[in-house]
Order: sequence, then C-alpha cells, then structure tokens
Amino acid sequence: MKDDLTGSAIAAIFSPRSVAVIGASSNPTKLGGRPVAFLKDYGFKGEIYPVNAGQAEVQGLVSYKDVRDIPGPVDQAVIVVPSQHVEEALRGCAEKGVKVAQVLSSGFAEADEAGRARQERLMEIVRETGIRITGPNALGSVSPPDRFCATFSTAFQGMHPPAGNVAVVTQSGAFGSCTYVMIARRGLGLSRIVATGNEADVATAEVISYLADDPETRVICAAVESCRDGDGLRAALRKAAAAGKPVIFMKVGASELGAKAAATHTGALAGNDKVFDTVIREGGAWRARSIEEMVDLAYVFAVGPAPQGPRAAIVSLSGGIGVMMADSAEGSGLELPPQSDDLRARVHDILDFAEGSNPLDVTAQVAVRQQTLPVIYDTLLASGEYDAIMLYLANSGMSPTAFAPHLGYVLEVRAKHPDKVIGVITPAHPEVQKALEEAGVLVFEDPSRLVRALGAAGSLAGLRAAALGVASDAGTAPRADLSQPLTEARAKRLLADAGLPVPAEAECGDAEAAARAADGIGYPVAMKILSPDIAHKTEVGGIALDLKDAEAVRTAFTRITDSARRLAPDARIDGVIVAPMAGEGAEIILGLHNDPVFGPMILAGAGGVMAEMLGDVSFASVPVSREAAERMVAPGDGWTRLLDAWRGRPARDRAALVEAICRLSDFAVANADQVDGVEMNPILVRSEGAAVLDALIVPRSA
Amino acid sequence: MKDDLTGSAIAAIFSPRSVAVIGASSNPTKLGGRPVAFLKDYGFKGEIYPVNAGQAEVQGLVSYKDVRDIPGPVDQAVIVVPSQHVEEALRGCAEKGVKVAQVLSSGFAEADEAGRARQERLMEIVRETGIRITGPNALGSVSPPDRFCATFSTAFQGMHPPAGNVAVVTQSGAFGSCTYVMIARRGLGLSRIVATGNEADVATAEVISYLADDPETRVICAAVESCRDGDGLRAALRKAAAAGKPVIFMKVGASELGAKAAATHTGALAGNDKVFDTVIREGGAWRARSIEEMVDLAYVFAVGPAPQGPRAAIVSLSGGIGVMMADSAEGSGLELPPQSDDLRARVHDILDFAEGSNPLDVTAQVAVRQQTLPVIYDTLLASGEYDAIMLYLANSGMSPTAFAPHLGYVLEVRAKHPDKVIGVITPAHPEVQKALEEAGVLVFEDPSRLVRALGAAGSLAGLRAAALGVASDAGTAPRADLSQPLTEARAKRLLADAGLPVPAEAECGDAEAAARAADGIGYPVAMKILSPDIAHKTEVGGIALDLKDAEAVRTAFTRITDSARRLAPDARIDGVIVAPMAGEGAEIILGLHNDPVFGPMILAGAGGVMAEMLGDVSFASVPVSREAAERMVAPGDGWTRLLDAWRGRPARDRAALVEAICRLSDFAVANADQVDGVEMNPILVRSEGAAVLDALIVPRSA
Repeated sequence: MKDDLTGSAIAAIFSPRSVAVIGASSNPTKLGGRPVAFLKDYGFKGEIYPVNAGQAEVQGLVSYKDVRDIPGPVDQAVIVVPSQHVEEALRGCAEKGVKVAQVLSSGFAEADEAGRARQERLMEIVRETGIRITGPNALGSVSPPDRFCATFSTAFQGMHPPAGNVAVVTQSGAFGSCTYVMIARRGLGLSRIVATGNEADVATAEVISYLADDPETRVICAAVESCRDGDGLRAALRKAAAAGKPVIFMKVGASELGAKAAATHTGALAGNDKVFDTVIREGGAWRARSIEEMVDLAYVFAVGPAPQGPRAAIVSLSGGIGVMMADSAEGSGLELPPQSDDLRARVHDILDFAEGSNPLDVTAQVAVRQQTLPVIYDTLLASGEYDAIMLYLANSGMSPTAFAPHLGYVLEVRAKHPDKVIGVITPAHPEVQKALEEAGVLVFEDPSRLVRALGAAGSLAGLRAAALGVASDAGTAPRADLSQPLTEARAKRLLADAGLPVPAEAECGDAEAAARAADGIGYPVAMKILSPDIAHKTEVGGIALDLKDAEAVRTAFTRITDSARRLAPDARIDGVIVAPMAGEGAEIILGLHNDPVFGPMILAGAGGVMAEMLGDVSFASVPVSREAAERMVAPGDGWTRLLDAWRGRPARDRAALVEAICRLSDFAVANADQVDGVEMNPILVRSEGAAVLDALIVPRSA
Repeated sequence: MKDDLTGSAIAAIFSPRSVAVIGASSNPTKLGGRPVAFLKDYGFKGEIYPVNAGQAEVQGLVSYKDVRDIPGPVDQAVIVVPSQHVEEALRGCAEKGVKVAQVLSSGFAEADEAGRARQERLMEIVRETGIRITGPNALGSVSPPDRFCATFSTAFQGMHPPAGNVAVVTQSGAFGSCTYVMIARRGLGLSRIVATGNEADVATAEVISYLADDPETRVICAAVESCRDGDGLRAALRKAAAAGKPVIFMKVGASELGAKAAATHTGALAGNDKVFDTVIREGGAWRARSIEEMVDLAYVFAVGPAPQGPRAAIVSLSGGIGVMMADSAEGSGLELPPQSDDLRARVHDILDFAEGSNPLDVTAQVAVRQQTLPVIYDTLLASGEYDAIMLYLANSGMSPTAFAPHLGYVLEVRAKHPDKVIGVITPAHPEVQKALEEAGVLVFEDPSRLVRALGAAGSLAGLRAAALGVASDAGTAPRADLSQPLTEARAKRLLADAGLPVPAEAECGDAEAAARAADGIGYPVAMKILSPDIAHKTEVGGIALDLKDAEAVRTAFTRITDSARRLAPDARIDGVIVAPMAGEGAEIILGLHNDPVFGPMILAGAGGVMAEMLGDVSFASVPVSREAAERMVAPGDGWTRLLDAWRGRPARDRAALVEAICRLSDFAVANADQVDGVEMNPILVRSEGAAVLDALIVPRSA
C-alpha cells in the first residue's frame, strides 16, 4: 500500500484527463485498435493519443511516434505492444510523467522464467521512477461515469455498461467481464471496472482502498486468485467498512480440486482457505462463492437501503413457500425472529385468519381483504422488531394491471420506512420490476435467493461493526526463552508463564515426595509413571486416578512403580508425575498457526482426532481482542456446540477458553519472530476453568 | 396405492373426455366461474358441463341442475361449492359414475375439527363407492397437451403454460404455481400440473406413479409438505426410476425453524428430515432445496440427454472461471476426473498452450486458433472418460454473429455425441439460446449453477441404478425372546444371537474361574469388577487392563476385589467380568430407529457425545442390502472419515461394520412387531473386526 500515491495514480486508472494508447492500431478489431475504438465509441471527453511508430494517424486521430512526443500531459498510458517492447514503452511513460500505465501485454510472470525476469525489470522502473502500473497481463479499466473504456476485451464491443454505483475489481479479466455482464444483465449500473492481471504493482487491495473514497461507488465487488499482501488487504477492507461500503469478495481455489487447478493456473500455492475466509470476515466483508451470489448481494445494496441488521419478517401468500424460505434461512445469516406477543396481537387484529408468526402466512384468502396488507407491512416494520421484510406475492407481478394494487401498498410502506429493506418475490413483468426497483424495493423471482442475499447483506451490518470495533485490548506476555529443548513440560511451562491454565504437575522420586506434592496440589490427584522409556503407561499399570488422600498416594506410588518394574524390567524408572485430576470437560484444540500471507492466526476447534479429521476449526487474526475471542467460541453450528449445555450436563466455561485465547494471542505477539506454531491438544474446558493437558511449541526455523 | 384403479382415475385428472364444474358461475372472474372460463379459453376439446342449480346457461354453455342430469358420461368433476355442500355434490358424482372429483373447496381438515369431520365423511363416500378425489383444498389440474385447465388459480389467467415434458405435482397450489411459472419463464414446456391439497385420497405418490407411465412426461417435479404413506412413496419413486424418469423432490420443513413453521401451517409434526432424505435417495430421486434448484435440474433433463454418470470435463476460456467451477463442484455430486495421460497427450497435440487438465484452460489465446475447439471437445467426449462437457465461452453468446462459429463447433459435437451432456456457459442472446437448446445443448449464465445442476443430474444416474439394484439379500435372524428384562447384558446376548459381534464376556466369582474364562477367551484380557452397587469402576480400582496370562488374571482378581472392598465397603461384590481387550478402533454408533411414516431404519454414525451433538449419522431403510450397507459406510465427507486410514494408522474394518449393519437389519426384520429401537454406542470398529461395547434394546410399547 502506497497511501500517499493512491489518490492520483489509481484515480488516473478510471478518470484520466488524457490517455495514450501505446501500440495503437488503425484496425479497430485488432488488440491495439480496440482501446482507441472503444474510447471514441464511448465518447470519452478527454484527450486520446494513439502512439504508433509507423503511422501519423490512427482511426482519425493524430498518432505519435513516441509517448514523449505528445504535446500535453498524459495521465494514463495503455500499453499493448509485444512483451519484449514493454520495458522501453514504460520507460518512455515514466519520462513523460504518466501517472499510471496499464500493461495489457502478456508474456510476463504468468508465462515463463524469461517473462518473470521481464516483469521484474518493469518493477525496477516502477521503483526508480515512481510511475505506477497495472498488470502486466491486465485487461484494462472501464469507468462508465467518465465514458472511459481502456481495454481490448471484446466484452465491451457494442455493449456499453450503464453508469451506476457498483464497482468490479478483479485480477482475472475474464472473471471481471463475466461478472460485469451478469451485473449489467441484472439491470444494475457500474461505476468502475478494472482487471489487475499479474498485480506486479497495483493490487486489488489498493483499488478497494481507492473505491472506499470514490463518490461514484456504493458497492465493491472484488475477485482474486491470490493475495500477496495480507496486511494491505486487511487495511483496505477496514477502510471500505469505515466508509460504509460493502465489499463482496470472491477468491477461487477454496476446494481441494479448485486449489489444485488454481496452482496450475497461477503457479501460486493455495494458503489455508479458512484463514482467507477469516480475514475477509474480520474486515467486515462478505465472501461470495459464486458470481451469481456476488451479483445478488450487489443488487441488494445497489437498489435498496443497506440493512441495519439480520432480522427479517416474511409475509407470504402461501404457507408452503413461507416454510421453504425458513428452510433457506438456515445457515444464511438471516434471522427470522417470531413476532413479540404484543405485535402478534396487533397483526391478528388486522387479519384474524393470518397463520403463524414468522413466516406470517396471510393465505390466498387475503385476496378478499387486500387493503389490510399495507397495514400489516407497516405494523411489522414500525414495531422495530425487523430490519427487513420479504413479501411473497405469488404470481401477481406478471401483469402490471394485476399488480397495480400491490405496487401501491409496497410503495406506501417504502415511503414510510426508508431505512428498512423491502423485498418482493414474484415473477415480475419488466414494468413492475422497474417501478419497484426505482423506489428502492428488491425484486426476486426465486424465494430462496432473496433469503440468502438478505442473509448475507444483513450479516454484513454486524461484520462491519465488529471490524470497526476496538482494534485490540491485548495484554503483554513475557518473551519466551527458547534456548532449552522444547519438551512437553518445557512448552507447558512457557505457556503457563504467559498466563495459560497449565495445571501444576510435580515430578516425584519417592512416595513421600509424591504425598507432599499431592498435599500441595489438592485432592483428588492422578499419578503417572515417570520414565523416558515407557510410552504406553497404561500397559505397565503405570497410571492411578482419583487418589483421594496422602495414604492413597503412597500406596499408589508403590503399586505403580512395582508394576512398571515387573512389566517393563528394562525401563529406567525416575518416579512418578503427580497432577490434579483433569476432571470432566470438552477436549478442545487451541493453537497458533503462522500463515505465510496473513501472519499469526489463533485457531480453536474440536480436540482430538475428530478435529484433525473433520477440520472443524475457527481462526482469528493476532492480536485477538476479547470480543473477537468471544465471537470465536460463540454458540452456533460446528465445534462450539461442544461447549453448550447438553442433556443436563452444564455448559462449559466459555470465559475460561476466551481468556486462554487472549493469553495465547499475547504469547504470539511477544514471540512473533521466534515461534512458528503452538498446539494445545487438548485444552480441557470444564464447567469451571480449563486445563492445558498437552502442549507443543514449534520454534521458527532460522 | 390402489394400483388397479390408478390408470383410469389419475388419467382422468389430466385427460378426461368430459368434465363437470359443480358450482359453476356465470362470472368468469369468480372462483366458480374461472374453471369454466379457463377450459373454454384453453380450447379444451372434450365436453364441459357447468352444474348450477339456479341457471340454465353458464358462460354460453348449457348448465345442469345436478351432475346426475348430465346426459353423457362424466370422467372428471371439479367441485367448487362451499364446504358444507361438498358431501352432497360428491355423492352425486359417485352416482353419476364420475371417475375422479377434484375438490377445490376449502374448509376441511386444514381448517378445524368440524372440517376434519367433513373430510372424513368424504372419505367414507370414496371407500363406499370407489370414486377417487383430489383435495379437498386442492387447486386442480392443468394438462397443456390436452388443452385442459381445471383450476381457479389466477396464475393461469392469460398465461397458457406451453406444452412440454415437465410434470409438476405439488400438495400446495401456491407452491405449484410458483414452480410452474418459473419453469415456463425458463422456456420449458409442461406436461401435467396438479395440486393435491389435503391429500385425503389421491396423494403425490400415486400421481408420480401415474406419471412414470405417462408418455407425455419426461421429468417429474414434486413438492410436498408432508407424507403419510411411506411405502407408497417408495414404490412410486422406484417405478419412476425403472421408467428412467428423474424425480426432483422438494419437502419443506427441513430446518428447525422451517419444521416449526410447517407444523403451524399443516398441523403435522415433522419427522426426522434425514430419514426423508434417505428415502428419496434410496428411491433414485433427487431432493432439491430451492425451487430454482428444481427448475435447473428439470431443465437439464428436459433439454438434453440424461447424463449417464457424474464425470464431467470443463473447457474454459478463463483459468479463474475454471477454478471457480471446480470449487462449485465440491459436494455437488459432480466428478471432475483429470484426463488420462494418453488423452492429455492428444489434447496437448491439438492445442499446445492449453493449461491444466480438468478444468482445461484453453485461455483467451484460443481466439487465434478457434477451429481447434471442436476437435478438443470431440477428443474429450470420444475418450469415454466423461459423461458431460461444460464449455465456458465467456461473453461470446451475447451476439448471434459473434457466436456463429461457436454455434457451429458445438452443434458439430452435439451431433457426434448424442448421448453426452453438453453445457454452454455464456450470457446468451435469445437466438443463441434457442439454437443451442433446440439442439439439446444446455445454456447457463452462471457457471456455478450449471456445475450444481449437472452434479445433481449426474448423481441421479447412480442413484437410479442403486434404487433398481438387488432389492434385498437379507438373511434371517432368530426371533428375540423379550420376556426377560432388557439389561445391557441381555441386549448384548440377543444381538449376539442375531450375529452381531458381541465380545464373549464371562462373569466369574473367583480367581480360578477368571483364569479359566481368560484361557477360553484368549489373551490379553480386561477385567472389571462385577457389582450391582458400583457405577464408577475406575474410582474403586475396579479395572485391570491388558492381562497377558493366567497368573496375571489371578493376581488382578485379588487386587481388584480387595481394592473395591476397601474403597466401597458397603457394595455387594459378585466377582469380576472377564472380557477380551477391546483394543484400538473407531467408536461408531449403530442403531435401529422406527420412523412413524417410513418404518424401521438403520442408522450409523460417529459414536459418543459428538454423534449426538453434531447429528452426523446416515440412515438406510430396512431391509438393508449388502450394497446399501456398503454405501452407508463408503468413504466421503462426514462421519465415515473415522473409518479411513489416517496418519499411518490403518483403515478400519469397513467390511465388519457392513456385516454388522446387515445383521442388525435381519434382527429388525425378525422383530419388527416387538422392537422399537436398538442402540449400540459404541460399536468399536478395529483394523480387523468390530466389537459391540454397549447395547440397548427398546421394546415396542404395547
């Protein structure tokens, strides 16, 4: 992130006063001809300067032999010459004082070793001169409000993207044009489009950061195949969140197969996809899994007010559709709270035959008392119990005439509640759709798609608030001395020093020492044989549990050591370990993982072999605030259910686990340069307190 | 299911020669007027007989005072009189010899107790006279090939559903009309539409059974809110599978919230949704989760050939889109096998710069060598390695002119491989879409939606084959004597008699008996204190593990009983239990669950508390064939991972678990009338063999 340069250089990608096309062709269908043709065709009002060594005129415009020959200032250059000439062209641009050059030429790092070297030479020019570049292997940019179109993508041939408030920034040009066409076909307008290609210099994050300030942009759609600058992405997302602009993010390669294909395609190894997911959420953004999901969500924000939260009411002409929508809400982030008793009584007063609460089934009978519908809508929204209302209006929208009364009802409520989201589900006639959307009402044909889109949009309110909350309330941990071998005992001691709940354990050489240690620890205690040669303690009778007094400890010492000597005659017996009884609790894994792009991350999940096999873990970026730790262990689906009360068993001590997460985060901060990983598996979380039963610290290899 | 009557009565729902409308009105916008108006408007060629006691003519047709007055035969009657007059009307229909009456009137079981009684009286007439009814509270039927439209749904006003090969059978009329409108807007034609309402008599299953034989129908879309006749549904699904017709099934109320809403709406308690899921899959059908998913899948079968399997090849003009499609394939049922080495070499010979294997990224560069594309398509399909091919053609489809060469390539390959599925992804111009679909090529705008639809369609091939496989290779189990109390020991004995792997355990009163028992069991053995008064055996030193010979057994007997007497002085000590060492293995839950609608089901999943909390279990209907048992434990996501090899640990003995499932199935068959449930939790599945460590049998309450 080069914040001081951002404004001018990135602005020049979209809104230059003048643009040079280096490698311009007289043939408007050729690669070098298209940017000139598009710029003319779109009606770009700034200066267009073709640059072509061999021609004095290109497509009716004066052409220059060299970018340095151009008389006026040049904000942007589009470079479409063969890869071996790009370096020279870029040097010319730098000398001319061009702010940003879009290198559309391919044959760089994406191609081969020679290309990688060529790309590195471009970056040397960037570093030397301060010029900025997109690409190489970029697809250029389009800015409908500026009637600017600098690309050779045929997707822009004939189809002018309408100006609007949705921005699309992608690494891949094909991904971008697929996205923008789906957005345009959905009836949405676009503010800025750019495809950043190899991202040698300008990366997606920097563009997002610019768009956060861009008055033309309300919603940001982004798609990447890889990310190199984790902190840059974090900062850009937070900036957009602070500006109140939703970022809808796609990163491909989430699946095992997709990751393999992405590695083939980009040459980059996929990091842990869950870490990426976490960083997106922490930034207050939404990770979309398909282009359609991205477009649906962009639609919600582009057309209506941003939802203030995830609470929605369903009003349905059909009970079955209402139930299906409730099914679709599961896991979507949408909440469908039942009406309060008071609200329910008022709704029932208005329409006595309405069934259920949320979904509210007004039944097909409502046809005879249609005029009650706007009263119900108003009552639901005025209650303050909902952030959004979804209206299933059957097939009424197919005919503008038949829909006329509904249109009246919906617009009436729209005017009364400008800050609430209103979504209508009906197969809408284009006129109906236009009238609703112009008033800021969402229109969907498929009920489940509205539910999922609103679930995502409603979740974003909370995610943004969390992203902008207290950045960190981290404490400090002592720096660990890693000069000694990191045995389990040593690892536990270091974690105990950092405040983690490691139970006191004592190594005792004789029965009296064991009894004294047990007195100190408090009863009941457990006892394990202490021997460097015995791996499976149970098999030699080497474990005694639940010892209730000193006498039992002394007896057990003799029994255990005798048994071990008899059953493992060759083993060295050093005595026993005395420890408090672990007791009953949930076995949780708590660890520190060092991501190559995003740095240290805390992870927590179901402990034991299940955890590893099912991969059910949550991540959070270090430093982890107390609030973030609480969100990690909050009730929900997945592993955190292990902490819930269950069949009369009390709930586990979430606060103790939250505390442990915070202390591990402090440990990670204090030892960022020397620790690569920590794994406590399990940490036993009891109904009161927690205990680290096993621990491993992996030092950073020098 | 009344198979002998199915043909004529259900046929009369869609293709009657004559129809009476009882309660016909002269006003074509009223409930009673609409069916007459629609029938006339749609051009129904059969006889239309309005029945209205007060009028001699209705909408230009001769009207009758009573259905019995009609001169000719009447195949179908549509009843739209108020609920209190339906009984009388139905009796008239029965006397007239009407085959089926569609009772559209509401005010029956869906309303209140009096309505329930009214519905029961209708069923008495059905049982007495043999007349069949749909509804009450039905929405009628539409059959475009017959130009027949007997409904009062305004959805059919003005919009005539085009004739085609997709049938829609739903309980809820609103659900049905939402579905059929989405199907029609997708450009598909419809064969039959019916909404069965309360299903007092004719239920969804019976209609599916009819549609399986219906030559007009190729794809069956069904949606229910409840199901009462589990075996009827099973038989209908199997019949459709045998006819090679895909059934796409929705049942709402899958989520917790949805189930609650459904209970409010239908008054029926939701059964276990996973059981429903299982029955649908076992019937070779697909459970859709949204109407859009249902429509997408219907589209695949309505437009192109049915996929022969789930193996698909992706050819993409964009690497990023290919990777995203691979992501979307995860969990969709679609398989994306890499090209064989030989195939890969051939593809590379054709296009040397193509990257990857599957997805195959032909890159935007292919534009200069477009004519290689059909060669690649042909090579991929001719290899026999794929059942389907998906072509991401960027935005080329927006212009018929630009798409012309692609259209040629695709149609060429379509002609060469008529049995393969070909899907094109592009935002298609209507002309482009029409040309492709008419040739049997699928067209999608969103890449992920094609992937998911083909995943479902491709899975159906395997599901159908499984559904039609060997019905059962069940063995026999002895009938259990349940006259004695069903203690754990007794339950284990009964299950052992049925062939389940219950380890031999011996109750021994003295050390010598214990040693003899251990000799018989084989070493090593475990020993547990035997006392009705001691619940926590560990706490009294009451357990000894891994005893390797008779001497160790004798010593342990003394140690254990001494320890227990000392630490639990008031407990009655009966001796010890000697058992083989359980060893290391996966703890699995294996059980029998009796579903109120679908009968006995075997369940298997992760054992212990995780299983219950995470609900990660698989079901299968009893009797379970060996093949079905193998599918239950087959490698995949979820709990069966516990059976996989993992980090050098050997795989668990799946065959032993399969055997146990089959034996439990036999036990369930032999004891169907007297056993309500069985739970073995856990059955320990080792690298060789399995052992039931705990067992519970719940007898059927009389």
